[in-house]
Amino acid sequence: MKLLSTILSWLKSRVPAFDWLAHYKRKHLRGDALAGVIVATLLIPQAMAYALLAGLPPQVGLYASLLPLAVYALLGSSRFLSVGPSALLSLLIVTQVAALAEPGSPRYIAFAMATALIAGVMQIAMGAARLGVLTNFLSQPVLSGFTSAAAFLIALSQVKYLLGVPLPPTDHLHELLGELARAVPQTRWPTVAISAASVLLLLAFQYVLPRVLARWKTLPAALAQSLSKSGPIVVVIVGTAIVAAFHLGARNGVSIIGEIPSGLPRFALPALAASEFLPLIPLAFAVSFIGFLENISVAKSLAAKRRQKVDSNQEFIALGAANLTAGVTGGYPVSGSFARSTVNFTAGAKTGLASLITVAVVGVAVLFLMPLFHHLPQAALAAIIIIAVTGLMDFRMPRRLWRYNKADAVALILTFIAVLAVGVTKGILIGAVSTILLYLWRTSRPHMAVVGRVGNTAQFLNVRRHEVKTLPHVLLLRIDESLYFTNAKYIEDFVLHAATERPRLRHLVLICTAINFIDASALETLTDLRTRIQEAGVELYLTEVKGPVMDRLADTEFLEQLGRDRVFFTTQDAYEMLAAPNLQ
Amino acid sequence: MKLLSTILSWLKSRVPAFDWLAHYKRKHLRGDALAGVIVATLLIPQAMAYALLAGLPPQVGLYASLLPLAVYALLGSSRFLSVGPSALLSLLIVTQVAALAEPGSPRYIAFAMATALIAGVMQIAMGAARLGVLTNFLSQPVLSGFTSAAAFLIALSQVKYLLGVPLPPTDHLHELLGELARAVPQTRWPTVAISAASVLLLLAFQYVLPRVLARWKTLPAALAQSLSKSGPIVVVIVGTAIVAAFHLGARNGVSIIGEIPSGLPRFALPALAASEFLPLIPLAFAVSFIGFLENISVAKSLAAKRRQKVDSNQEFIALGAANLTAGVTGGYPVSGSFARSTVNFTAGAKTGLASLITVAVVGVAVLFLMPLFHHLPQAALAAIIIIAVTGLMDFRMPRRLWRYNKADAVALILTFIAVLAVGVTKGILIGAVSTILLYLWRTSRPHMAVVGRVGNTAQFLNVRRHEVKTLPHVLLLRIDESLYFTNAKYIEDFVLHAATERPRLRHLVLICTAINFIDASALETLTDLRTRIQEAGVELYLTEVKGPVMDRLADTEFLEQLGRDRVFFTTQDAYEMLAAPNLQ
Repeated sequence: MKLLSTILSWLKSRVPAFDWLAHYKRKHLRGDALAGVIVATLLIPQAMAYALLAGLPPQVGLYASLLPLAVYALLGSSRFLSVGPSALLSLLIVTQVAALAEPGSPRYIAFAMATALIAGVMQIAMGAARLGVLTNFLSQPVLSGFTSAAAFLIALSQVKYLLGVPLPPTDHLHELLGELARAVPQTRWPTVAISAASVLLLLAFQYVLPRVLARWKTLPAALAQSLSKSGPIVVVIVGTAIVAAFHLGARNGVSIIGEIPSGLPRFALPALAASEFLPLIPLAFAVSFIGFLENISVAKSLAAKRRQKVDSNQEFIALGAANLTAGVTGGYPVSGSFARSTVNFTAGAKTGLASLITVAVVGVAVLFLMPLFHHLPQAALAAIIIIAVTGLMDFRMPRRLWRYNKADAVALILTFIAVLAVGVTKGILIGAVSTILLYLWRTSRPHMAVVGRVGNTAQFLNVRRHEVKTLPHVLLLRIDESLYFTNAKYIEDFVLHAATERPRLRHLVLICTAINFIDASALETLTDLRTRIQEAGVELYLTEVKGPVMDRLADTEFLEQLGRDRVFFTTQDAYEMLAAPNLQ
Repeated sequence: MKLLSTILSWLKSRVPAFDWLAHYKRKHLRGDALAGVIVATLLIPQAMAYALLAGLPPQVGLYASLLPLAVYALLGSSRFLSVGPSALLSLLIVTQVAALAEPGSPRYIAFAMATALIAGVMQIAMGAARLGVLTNFLSQPVLSGFTSAAAFLIALSQVKYLLGVPLPPTDHLHELLGELARAVPQTRWPTVAISAASVLLLLAFQYVLPRVLARWKTLPAALAQSLSKSGPIVVVIVGTAIVAAFHLGARNGVSIIGEIPSGLPRFALPALAASEFLPLIPLAFAVSFIGFLENISVAKSLAAKRRQKVDSNQEFIALGAANLTAGVTGGYPVSGSFARSTVNFTAGAKTGLASLITVAVVGVAVLFLMPLFHHLPQAALAAIIIIAVTGLMDFRMPRRLWRYNKADAVALILTFIAVLAVGVTKGILIGAVSTILLYLWRTSRPHMAVVGRVGNTAQFLNVRRHEVKTLPHVLLLRIDESLYFTNAKYIEDFVLHAATERPRLRHLVLICTAINFIDASALETLTDLRTRIQEAGVELYLTEVKGPVMDRLADTEFLEQLGRDRVFFTTQDAYEMLAAPNLQ
């Protein structure tokens, strides 16, 4: 009995669904059901479109939207997140797996499944090892630059479908542009007509419909929002109907989806030899990282709106379980979708039940509606992808960053260019490394302020910014950075220079409010510095040393040589003592 | 006339020798002359020994001690530094160039010269571009681990000469150990006898002689110190005399230096095709960096003793010019020597003239004394190298670092192991990267303190360390780190957690004394955080924001949403306002 209850309580802590299922309130059912159905109408076209973007048959995208979504709904700590195929992950798959197998072939599908499987295992392992924190090492400018560049590549990769010209996939900008240039003369005009109509229809739903519906006062806001998100399913239905009615596929060469097998996916491991999993590891790592980042940012922003908490490590595990499931049920890598999760949230979802209802609707579609999509034109799906990813491109961010902090703007632009120039995985790596180097460069030349006393108060402020009192034989210096190897010598040079500039100087006070840490290199430099200025007749003092810093200094040679009486609690104490006439 | 004086004043600023030559005082001549001669007696055996360590004929070491030393004396900003062959640079040469040519062959010499040439150009370029600061990115623990490991490898590489067994050079520990194990059975006992005698003699000079001389009260201290540094030349003279007298070279197979060509080196470019310079670039980069680091640390520590200033960029240029000269006068890479510079300083050198006198003495030796070194045993030179480099191994440093800061100790040990495991150049790179990662890891989890007021003062201290007053509806939080991408999410989670823990909380005050910078990622997080806690009924305030941080925040959405009246000059102001009953 005890064992059973232990297992149960462990399961409860690991499976958030126990909580919301046990306390499910009937009043939530209507919202959950409505949201579930609306999300499904958005998910079905997106899942097929992203699968095609990834070089996979459309049903793979739908399979990835069945069990993986259900598994996430049970394990995820977010109640609104809708996982499934994603444009960024699809781009990663097509650019890396296309080198291993022919897109669309059974081996290609097996590689995509295997990537999901490995990425799932990695995500579960990282979550269990509580390594969610690792994702913090990608800064926002790098993520923004990466996303914009990837969205740009995705949009560009779809132009061939808009024009109706088949081209091999690539994530290298110059190859893409070269191929497009060769493709343009072969443009098929019936396809272009369908593309243009699809794009216009999607834009109308996105920008015109909300304004029209806003005037219709009696319409509930949630319904209005959901209607304006229904562009993709309308484009799919209308596009398919027109192509089927006028036989545009057979007569005018418009590319159509064709036969999609009906029926649910089977449980099966990817049909690959064990050794064939190995070359997928770098790709799976990129997928697990980028998928998680998409996931956690969407989950956090939605949870905050309801003042709910998202647990990074639980999210890692839940997304990992979803990917693992995708890998054994004929799917491919999934992550949380911003667009579908927002629709889920605004359409009134209250619990994970909404996602389970979405799964049921997608399941019905997979079982019975596949023949209806036979005449679905690829150009319509390409239009859906392009309109979806243009929202990911953020051109205001670089300008905002440039005003706020040039280094961040440089990191963004560098990542953007690197992704376009050398591909998505290497590009994001270059961005991450450059951010770190820019950060080190900044902290290696810290801000330092000579300060003086404000009137007779306890406040000491920068002599350049404020009217303050100073003493000619005392230099009060505030170093606005932790002392560590990249800046130790710089600070030493600054202090020595400041000391040689002031012939009457006898006391140098370092104000340590902003020093959070002193590493061994900096401690060595400080020890040397103290000796050097003492030999030049200048005494060193420290004030306002933080507790953790003081704890570390306690047993060091530096503090022994300095003397504990040279360390003051407040700058005021030091100032008042050193103002004494006998110390001038 | 104006042009001439402009050129003259530019030269004066670039050639420190103009200054000390124009104002040369006759009273300095005695010290300079004595120091110059004593350094030469140390330099001649070391130059030959290090050349052999580098896989070069002994005269190459002597050539590197002529013009390069003179060029440095004229251009260097340190007046005591003695440049010339160095053990670390010799190790770099032998391990990297041995892959390109047979050690000791004319092509090998040409590669060594070319390395000096390229390193010289790099150093001049880095000095001119004021990139001296780049060297700060190698932390002290990394340098210490590198130096100890390199010294260990050098000492081990000399054991073959002590035993009299020829072995190929390598900087891989396992190869070295394997070869030594095979070599031990072939030990030549006459060579071992010379080795043992040399080591004992050197140790006696280093440890016993100073104590004996200290009792001799009338002996000047400088002379006593110089005498105790004369071990190497005594070993060379005595060793050569014994080998020559008993014909140990021919009769007992003791390896001797043999014929050294007399005469000064000629100006000549390395005899290599232009394309053969290319593969030397990584090695030259390592040489220019490590050579400069040796140089600047010796120069700084000696300059400080006389309260003189060393200019990093001028040092880079001066050392670069010395290396360039070495590359075109039959030498190989040089840097400042700690041992010889200290001897120069304590023997009474006052200006660069001492080094010019050293050059004259070495020149005389190269012209006339070379036949005398014919019977010099290699074992004696190996003993000199081993005793010289054991001083570079620092085993107290890792223990001291472990007590002070574990991360620094880990960096040292990691660098030490990496240098032994994968070689010197890759090893130091691994060390440098690991230090940066350890630093990022530390700043990603900053110290944060909940603080309270000390009595009725303006001081606010950690509630865990001090007796302070707090208010139940106000949380005063001090973040002891700049806010940037690696820690933004961590801080957000901490603040949200702290807020949810306190149901009565209505005001959250962030004390920004230790925040030196807020990057774009952190600003985004702060903006989100403010919205989230406000939705939960908690207002955000900032206090003691630094000038440069406030300047940046000025035009941001964050400050606009927060309101300027929520930013207080002092924590006291905020505390007193929030203590008002109507705000509880």
